[in-house]
Order: sequence, then structure tokens, then C-alpha cells
Amino acid sequence: MGNRLLYVGLDVGGTTMKACVVDETGQAYPSISMATEAYKGQDHGLETMAESIRRAVSEAGKTMSEIAGIGVATPGPMDISGGIILEPANLKPWKNVPVRKYIQEAFGLPTAYQNDANAAALGEFWVGAGKEAKSLVLFTLGTGIGGGIILHNRVLEGEHSHGAEIGHMKVEMTKPRLCGCGHWGCLESYASATSVVKRTKEALESDGGKSILHTIWQGGDQEITSRDIFDAAKNGDELAQKIVDETSFYLAVGAMNLMHIIDPEIVAFGGGMVAAGPDFLQKIQHYVKELALPVPAEKTIIRYAMLGSDAGMIGSAAGARMLTNNGKL
Amino acid sequence: MGNRLLYVGLDVGGTTMKACVVDETGQAYPSISMATEAYKGQDHGLETMAESIRRAVSEAGKTMSEIAGIGVATPGPMDISGGIILEPANLKPWKNVPVRKYIQEAFGLPTAYQNDANAAALGEFWVGAGKEAKSLVLFTLGTGIGGGIILHNRVLEGEHSHGAEIGHMKVEMTKPRLCGCGHWGCLESYASATSVVKRTKEALESDGGKSILHTIWQGGDQEITSRDIFDAAKNGDELAQKIVDETSFYLAVGAMNLMHIIDPEIVAFGGGMVAAGPDFLQKIQHYVKELALPVPAEKTIIRYAMLGSDAGMIGSAAGARMLTNNGKL
Repeated sequence: MGNRLLYVGLDVGGTTMKACVVDETGQAYPSISMATEAYKGQDHGLETMAESIRRAVSEAGKTMSEIAGIGVATPGPMDISGGIILEPANLKPWKNVPVRKYIQEAFGLPTAYQNDANAAALGEFWVGAGKEAKSLVLFTLGTGIGGGIILHNRVLEGEHSHGAEIGHMKVEMTKPRLCGCGHWGCLESYASATSVVKRTKEALESDGGKSILHTIWQGGDQEITSRDIFDAAKNGDELAQKIVDETSFYLAVGAMNLMHIIDPEIVAFGGGMVAAGPDFLQKIQHYVKELALPVPAEKTIIRYAMLGSDAGMIGSAAGARMLTNNGKL
Repeated sequence: MGNRLLYVGLDVGGTTMKACVVDETGQAYPSISMATEAYKGQDHGLETMAESIRRAVSEAGKTMSEIAGIGVATPGPMDISGGIILEPANLKPWKNVPVRKYIQEAFGLPTAYQNDANAAALGEFWVGAGKEAKSLVLFTLGTGIGGGIILHNRVLEGEHSHGAEIGHMKVEMTKPRLCGCGHWGCLESYASATSVVKRTKEALESDGGKSILHTIWQGGDQEITSRDIFDAAKNGDELAQKIVDETSFYLAVGAMNLMHIIDPEIVAFGGGMVAAGPDFLQKIQHYVKELALPVPAEKTIIRYAMLGSDAGMIGSAAGARMLTNNGKL
């Protein structure tokens, strides 16, 4: 297969899955997406994955005979080395799904399997925020906080598939917030989009009706998004500005902890919340300088991710490339 | 040099330096130690390092012609890849000392240079607490909290020589303690031996004279050691027991954070405080189970380090072995 230098990357999410062909330089062909429809069961899920891969190859105007390997990324929890999704909260009722084996046998091609946030980090490392770097930590800011670490030219998977679960580092002991994981004081419970909304609602309960956010939220389970909050902050709303400022501080704490553990060349922030724009990034950078030890504070590059929602798909293909290229990108 | 399978490991500390010959299986010959006497200046320091190496070889009944490589470990801050100690607080007035170059030229042998806590982790990984493992995180509990991480069969040095500065991860935001590094809320400011003493003195100020520790400490700068506190706890002193219990909780927070970032096979605790004995370790293990996500909580092995104060010296030799053995131990 020496002449095959194309890979398929597939990123399976709770709502949709996305796939595309990627060449050996990390350039992506146009992608396709399909509804995941996890509720239809895992057999349907596996068939949809295979169909996504076929469609991506077709979309690129290629044939399977030109594909050197396939990469698939899914949410956790998972057994990465076993190639299995265990019981993903976002993909009910799937349980112990042998993703890698199924895809490998369906196509007869080397298949790499990894965690979706790890894949996003690998994609950013290959052709995005860490393209020129030797190491990278990625925080993905969405409903939760995920992460991926690329170090020593490898994905840090961990011995028990829990490497880079950086949303679940504990940053508070005295007045810890409850995290979605059931534990207390995790970074995710402070700085995910969900937590930003929660903290804002708490603040709105006692601001005497001053914030413009009261025009959107009148209490209870009513919808308010982190986007609304960042917009209100830009429009000068004091309460929103305080929330945004605190959020940037929490993320700086997360970045700084990784700078004192991994000490990467790049810390990148990705996911929906980066829509907050350059001011928010500058706030994070400001607090990192204040919090970190002098050398990493000065030298570590803190930036936004660059590949948007394509990162996982491209990183999945990167996994396939490494699998078929002696571990090298 | 194909037949040379002996290495010298030298561990330079603030008070003494220790060196010994180590064979290719990690077995150490008897060690020697010399006073560091940093106050005599860095030229004297470099000469003492060279003399320590010569004495260690002699102590082992060997000659320099049998040595394949030398490893030297020093405290930070340092430029690991440059082979230079920068301005170590414990080795005043040394500044920008070219350790690796000096030793390499003095002996004409390949010389590996690393951080002392990283070296200790590598020593434990080679023949101690992580002997059979694929990855290890070591916390060294002394005046401060140092650490070393062995991952992907390498020492995690970091891009700016700040890998595994795990004493300076921030674990508290609401009521953070001031750390020796000048920042707030670092793990070290809660769980180092120094912090245990500080927290105890604070508690003694307001316990109404009940604790038996008042027989040792009557206030002010008077000496009290973490050993006294652990002993008092064993003897049933309530205040001391509370301090010890909290300390084990803080260390569990540190362990659990590393389990969600590095996800190693082993988390080991070394340094003076492990004299606290098996009860203290059990408390840490108990809190880790309570704090961590289910899979790492169940599977990660939490134990004490095994090489005592020889770890750094043996790990320095391990660095020399890797340098001369294609990166392998």
C-alpha cells in the first residue's frame, strides 16, 4: 500500500457524525455529515459510521482502493487500546461497542481509534494551532470541558484511557461546585458553557434586576446561552462582564496547571466558547501571566484553536496516518 | 565503548551531594557523599561534583575506563536542554552554572543532566515503585513538593524545563494559601512538610491549649517538625489527627488531578514525609477513591516510593544509561 497516502477521518458526536478524506499533508477534502441517531441502537450506529466513511470517500472523488487507513473518534468513556466505546452519556443506549474491530473488518484497512477531544488536539497539532510546535494542550470548551495533550509526538491516552480529562482537575476545595461527573470542584463546573450559564443565573437572582440579561431570562429553566452572556458583556453589562472575567480567570487556572505539569509549547482553547472572540483570549492570557511561574508565563503560547469543528475529523485521520506511517505524522 | 555497562549517578542537593556507580540493571554500588558548600562559589561546586564522581568510581572498586556515561541531577530552576542550573534558591550564590558541559569535558564521557525530582522519578521507574510499570508520577514531599513524570518511556521535561512542577498546581481559589513561589493556592502551600507545620501552628493558636503539641511549641518561630505532628497524631492527639487527615486529602487531590491529566499506572509518594507510615498512605488512597473518576479510582496504583534518598542518584545514572543506550533503560 506504499502509494496510498489518503486517510479517512470520522468524528462521531452525540447528534451528528462528520467524515472526510485527508491527505498526507493534513489537507482535508470536503466533508459529509450524517445524523448519529444513537437511539436507533448501536448496530445502526456502526452501519452509519461505515456509510459515512463510504460517503466521505465518494465526496472526495476517490475510491476505497486509494485509502491507506481509517481513523475514528468517539466520545468517552472508552477503552482506547481495546477499540471500544463503553457507556457514553451522549450515545444512549450504546454499550461496549467494538468500533475499531467493526470498521477494520468492514473495510479491511488499518483503523485507528481514539477519544474525540484527543483527536481534536491531534488535528490542531498536525495542521492547526500547534502546527509548528513540539507539544500542545487543547481545552475544548462546550457543554463540558474536554481536552487533549500531544507530547513526545504522541497522543497522551493514559494507562486507563483517562489521559487529558482536564475538565476534571480539581481547582477548588473550600467552596467547590458540583460537577456533572458527580464530584466537586472540577474545572468543568466553573468554566464550561453550561457552568457559565449556571453561574450567571445565580448572579441574576440577586442583582436587583439591573442586568440587561433579565430581558432574556426571567427565572427557572428558561433558555439563556453563554453566547447571550458574552454578548451582554460586550455591550457593557456589568454582571455579564464579571462572569466573563471570572470565567477567563478559571480557564487561566486550568492553563497554568497544565503549564506546571505538561509544560507544553502551546495551550489552545477550542470549542463553541471561542466565539467569545479575541478580548476573552486576552483576558485568559493576562491571568496566565499573573498566575504562572515566570518562565512558562513568559514563554508558553496561549491561543485559540484554528480548525473549528473539523479538528476531530482531521485528527482522526491523523491517527490513521500515524498508524500506517511508523507512528509519524 | 560497547563493553562499558556502568554509569555514575550524581545527585546535587543544597547541603550534600551523593554519587554512586550503577550497573545496567539499576543495581547501585556503595555511594559516597560530599558537602556541597554552595557558599564557596560555583567553581568550587563544579570541582566538588567532579571529585564526587571520581570518589564514587573508586568506592565501587572501578576505574573511569569502565564508565559508559555520567548522569547529574540538580535542583531547579534550570535549562535542562542547555545543561545549565540557573539561579537555584538552595545553592546561592550559583548562577547559570554550565554543569553538563563541565562534567562532560572533565571526563570526556557522555553526560546526562536533569532536574533532581525528575531524576528521582526515573530512578523509581527503573528499579523502584514503578519497576514493572509503563508510566509513573512521583510526588516528593519535603520542604516543598517536587515531582517527576515518566511517560512514553521518557522523562517529561517540558518545553521550558517546567514539566512535573506539580507542587505548583493550583487547587484552591476561594481561600488560597500563599506559596513559597509567591503565588497563591499551590498544592505545596497545603501539603509540603513546611505547610503541615504552618497549618499546625495556626491550629494551635486557637485550640485552647488542648493539644499535646503545646508541650513542644509555645509559639513564635520555635521548632516543631512534621514528624512531631505525625507522631502526635499516632498518639491520639485530635488536632494533629485533623492536620494529618487534611494533609492526606490535599495529597489525594494532587494525585487525582494527575490521574485525570497523565493517567499513569502508578502514583508514588516519596520524600521525608513518607516516614508517616502506612496509615497515612491508606488515608491518601481512601480519599483518591472518593475523589477520582471510577476507572482511574479503581485501577491506579497509589504507593510509597521505594528507593528513599537514593532515588535521585540512581535516576541520574538511569539518565546516563538512556543517553548511551538509544533512549532505553
